[in-house]
Amino acid sequence: MTGTDILGYAAGAITSLTFLPQVLKTWKEKSAKDVSLLMFIIAAINEVMWIVYGALLDNWVIILTNAIVLAMSLTMIFLKLRYNK
Amino acid sequence: MTGTDILGYAAGAITSLTFLPQVLKTWKEKSAKDVSLLMFIIAAINEVMWIVYGALLDNWVIILTNAIVLAMSLTMIFLKLRYNK
Repeated sequence: MTGTDILGYAAGAITSLTFLPQVLKTWKEKSAKDVSLLMFIIAAINEVMWIVYGALLDNWVIILTNAIVLAMSLTMIFLKLRYNK
Repeated sequence: MTGTDILGYAAGAITSLTFLPQVLKTWKEKSAKDVSLLMFIIAAINEVMWIVYGALLDNWVIILTNAIVLAMSLTMIFLKLRYNK
């Protein structure tokens, strides 16, 4: 495994956790008025596209990282609808 | 170009625009209290990693899509610091 490979895996791991700080902040503060619902709807649809793409290529790294982001996007859609005040 | 390739390019194009609805919402409403600053700081650092990765692979699709997301992340950091009320 080259340094470039390691950088790619590290970048991918961080990408999969990008939405986590927003999920934790909204969960804690129970307020999501300023958060864009559309962003997370687009992200969720986009993650499904990436998961299908990963499945077509039989690439489990693409499938798993995008499944994590999909789970967080769906969580944020739920939190946004619940705490949209 | 196969159907799988087209799906990958379409998914990549949508990914590069994921943050746009949040940028537009915050720009319009001038309120970002509920938005996670940490999310966009992590995203910005992560995009720099992806741009370096793309440069090492000489892959302009990776470089350009992540440069777009980096620009939007930096815009959101600016808007968050300006409208954090």
